[in-house]
Amino acid sequence: MEKLKQRIREEGKIRGTNELLKVDSFLNHQMDTAFLAELGQAFREKFDGCQVDKILTIETSGIGIAVAAAPAFGNVPVLFAKKNKTKNIAGDVFISQAESFTQDRRPYNIFVSKEFLKAGEKVLLMDDFLANGSALAALLDIAQQAGAQVVGAAIVIEKTFQPGGRLLRDKGIRVESLARIASMSEETGVVFAD
Amino acid sequence: MEKLKQRIREEGKIRGTNELLKVDSFLNHQMDTAFLAELGQAFREKFDGCQVDKILTIETSGIGIAVAAAPAFGNVPVLFAKKNKTKNIAGDVFISQAESFTQDRRPYNIFVSKEFLKAGEKVLLMDDFLANGSALAALLDIAQQAGAQVVGAAIVIEKTFQPGGRLLRDKGIRVESLARIASMSEETGVVFAD
Repeated sequence: MEKLKQRIREEGKIRGTNELLKVDSFLNHQMDTAFLAELGQAFREKFDGCQVDKILTIETSGIGIAVAAAPAFGNVPVLFAKKNKTKNIAGDVFISQAESFTQDRRPYNIFVSKEFLKAGEKVLLMDDFLANGSALAALLDIAQQAGAQVVGAAIVIEKTFQPGGRLLRDKGIRVESLARIASMSEETGVVFAD
Repeated sequence: MEKLKQRIREEGKIRGTNELLKVDSFLNHQMDTAFLAELGQAFREKFDGCQVDKILTIETSGIGIAVAAAPAFGNVPVLFAKKNKTKNIAGDVFISQAESFTQDRRPYNIFVSKEFLKAGEKVLLMDDFLANGSALAALLDIAQQAGAQVVGAAIVIEKTFQPGGRLLRDKGIRVESLARIASMSEETGVVFAD
């Protein structure tokens, strides 16, 4: 999506080489809600004709894009997986484990109440970033535990120099990203994959 | 808002007396995005005629209602304060401190980048719950540090048996809540204040 690439070029803050990209001005601290709704429309076009019963995302930064995208999908419910660093999670939940790559690969649990994810539901996974794919793989695991049918993964920004996109596609998941970053550095700026 | 009260009555899960109310089916785990947009419209009517430049909320569960409400306010930007339990917060940020009442009054920092909150901006605070008011007071502190003008606080569910609403109103903040709970218990269910 050209408009997204342009905003990443203009507003993205890069640290190091292929290390950190901050898009805090519109995506995951301040949220440009009109623009996020446009991203949602772009997701709808990517998954044109696909039935989506529910959007499944993960706290924190997936929530904004998922809620802003919901109207484009007929205002389907948005379910966000919760993160919990303790081992004690109460209630009847699906649990999976992810690793934080920004926090020294520390593992954490994510969980979703069983009552909100049912067998046969057509679920679209959604997140702001796809890098190593640990969070998305955990979401996928939870959807599969529930017996839900995963329509695909809708990603705002994919870093193609990290393995998450390939890992998901190798599992047969359709991954649609609105901007794919091949490399980035403070010197060169952002280089897009296509 | 009658429709909200009805959903709280029908879907809310109460534990103890005046202790815990879960509305996970539509507000803060699974989010009924069409209904959240209606809540946003109800906020717009409460603050009818007030200029709102930005909605300020706090992660995690404030994000969904704020993003869903933004269209009713002309798609203003939504800014969410981030929580951080460490003392090391990088960058040029406004910081305040809140206490978690669900986690043994453990204090935590919340912060907002200075570049996204400016003097004179008309800011509407928004959150899913108002109970003891610690998070809202911290948001208010941050808005005041920035020199922003606080239009008011838009709250989905206020627990009037806890002091948060009074504390904010005593500070001169206009608080508008869509449902006000006077008491609740497993035996009596939810009793609304008005």
